[in-house]
Amino acid sequence: MTLETTLAAIAPADEPAMAAARELQARLTKPAGSLGVLEELSVRLAGLAAACPPPMPEPAAIAVFAGDHGVHAQGVTPWPQEVTAQMVANFVAGGATINAFARQINASILVIDVGVGIELHGGDNLLDANVRRGTRDLAVTGAMTEDEARAALETGISVAEALIEGGAKCLLTGDMGIANTTPAAALIAAFTGAAAAQVTGRGTGVDDATYAKKVDVVARAIALHQPDPARPLTTLAAVGGLEHAALAGFILGAAARRIPVIIDGVIAASAAVVAAAFAPDAVAAMVAGHRSVEPGADVALTHLRLSPLLDLGLRLGEGTGAALAAPLVAGSVRVLHEVATFDSAGVSEK
Amino acid sequence: MTLETTLAAIAPADEPAMAAARELQARLTKPAGSLGVLEELSVRLAGLAAACPPPMPEPAAIAVFAGDHGVHAQGVTPWPQEVTAQMVANFVAGGATINAFARQINASILVIDVGVGIELHGGDNLLDANVRRGTRDLAVTGAMTEDEARAALETGISVAEALIEGGAKCLLTGDMGIANTTPAAALIAAFTGAAAAQVTGRGTGVDDATYAKKVDVVARAIALHQPDPARPLTTLAAVGGLEHAALAGFILGAAARRIPVIIDGVIAASAAVVAAAFAPDAVAAMVAGHRSVEPGADVALTHLRLSPLLDLGLRLGEGTGAALAAPLVAGSVRVLHEVATFDSAGVSEK
Repeated sequence: MTLETTLAAIAPADEPAMAAARELQARLTKPAGSLGVLEELSVRLAGLAAACPPPMPEPAAIAVFAGDHGVHAQGVTPWPQEVTAQMVANFVAGGATINAFARQINASILVIDVGVGIELHGGDNLLDANVRRGTRDLAVTGAMTEDEARAALETGISVAEALIEGGAKCLLTGDMGIANTTPAAALIAAFTGAAAAQVTGRGTGVDDATYAKKVDVVARAIALHQPDPARPLTTLAAVGGLEHAALAGFILGAAARRIPVIIDGVIAASAAVVAAAFAPDAVAAMVAGHRSVEPGADVALTHLRLSPLLDLGLRLGEGTGAALAAPLVAGSVRVLHEVATFDSAGVSEK
Repeated sequence: MTLETTLAAIAPADEPAMAAARELQARLTKPAGSLGVLEELSVRLAGLAAACPPPMPEPAAIAVFAGDHGVHAQGVTPWPQEVTAQMVANFVAGGATINAFARQINASILVIDVGVGIELHGGDNLLDANVRRGTRDLAVTGAMTEDEARAALETGISVAEALIEGGAKCLLTGDMGIANTTPAAALIAAFTGAAAAQVTGRGTGVDDATYAKKVDVVARAIALHQPDPARPLTTLAAVGGLEHAALAGFILGAAARRIPVIIDGVIAASAAVVAAAFAPDAVAAMVAGHRSVEPGADVALTHLRLSPLLDLGLRLGEGTGAALAAPLVAGSVRVLHEVATFDSAGVSEK
């Protein structure tokens, strides 16, 4: 689907289904409200599916979008750029943390080269959708052209479509890209209006000098591009990354099909902000998996009015926080399917 | 096993295994520390098992201990006492929330009548280990004799033993008992020295008048029994409940076998405090599943120096918060088993 077709298909949450879910929760054999945020989540997912109970969000499918970044030249990370391609090989071989977590939840993993700097050798679960071999340096010029950003967005949409057609009932956002927390910070600053220092974090662990440089790069990028949040494609192209763009499309693709999509860390959260700028109703499909250590993730989730399910001090990316949250999402829906009511179980009420 | 044999078998965490887990975490293909509290958890579980990696904590087994409470007569809850037996029937029939969550994580459930007020009709997963048909009213007399408390403790130990012999690699604490947050609050006050108002919560949802009555009951029980934390059996008998005693034994049984045990909400947390009073090294086996809404749970976990994995606003009990946390515990261990090292995957370091 094109970006425009996808955006046109995104609709608000269904209020009658949400009301039905609230009413059902109140009749189940447990004190009202005793499942806390999982009850609210089940109501949101009923609204998304326009059905009560909503379908079980299993099996889940993880898409790990990989890209490289011209801004790496600014020295924003101690990791060499080659690690992006090396970690893609690790994903394909099944040796990364996201592979372990995918096995834990019986989820599939698809790795998508949307912008890796070097040519990759294939694998069964590696999709070649390279738009360009890394972005340009957003500190000095537009990271992508609008056509490139659109190509990456539509790749994300296509991947969501294909996974849903293949039976996935829940999509999980994964990412890999050395230096990709810098464009994530720039996107969050651009779309929320927050200052560079508020949205920039230490990524995979940078020292004070590198951190100061990273804040300065984000601030300079915003000053250079003067991004307008009302023009999401232009803004995404100016300060984003290819995996960020693809993830925004992936989220929009899920929303268009009314399938929940679990947002991982700061990269996915920045893509979620982009997706919401294109289609505010897309937020109904988003579930915030966890509270990343990266401060920009919190700014983004607050902007989207989403509360994270987990708070484990994670800062890995790859989709790991989304995968850890997936059983909670499934559990919240399972309650609506399987728990007996006071009437049916013959349990007295208070 | 007797209580004394079990206590004698509980030993400290193994420091070399913990050091090996820390060293292994540092070599895995991810930034050091990027899995946050899950890395610390994997180190603790290596120490518990005295092995790196520790065995995968799957399959999990849930034990739901059920009992009634003489203190119900004080009007500490709006729920009728008959709901305990009705919910046991719901567990046996598979219709409660804990049943749904058990299916989500492929865990078994065993329901143990350790103190339900009326005779129950059997079921495949219902164990009759009734010590007495509900405790006495702790606001006016000792809730149990020491022999009754010991019998319930040893039932918990036996259940842990049996589940471990049956193949369980992780034990989950469940409970059912109308009015059981009152003895939980009294136990936490007795063993931590916290005031009644600090440890007493609204349980399944009580109004202001009932809440005030509940705080008063806990304060009166402490004043009446003058519990001594250095005499755990006496204190447990005076202000505890039969399911609290059985859960304390269950936790001690897990610790003696060096198997992790996930603590659910305030009932399990009060039992964990009792277990630690009997054997401080038992804390090494405990994983705090979630932060309950009940304030006493927080006081208990702080006393035990445990941080909860989840914070979802739960106040249901049954073992639900423990079941939701189980995949996180499994994920933390799976990383040590399955993630490639920088060397083995050919990934460059920073």
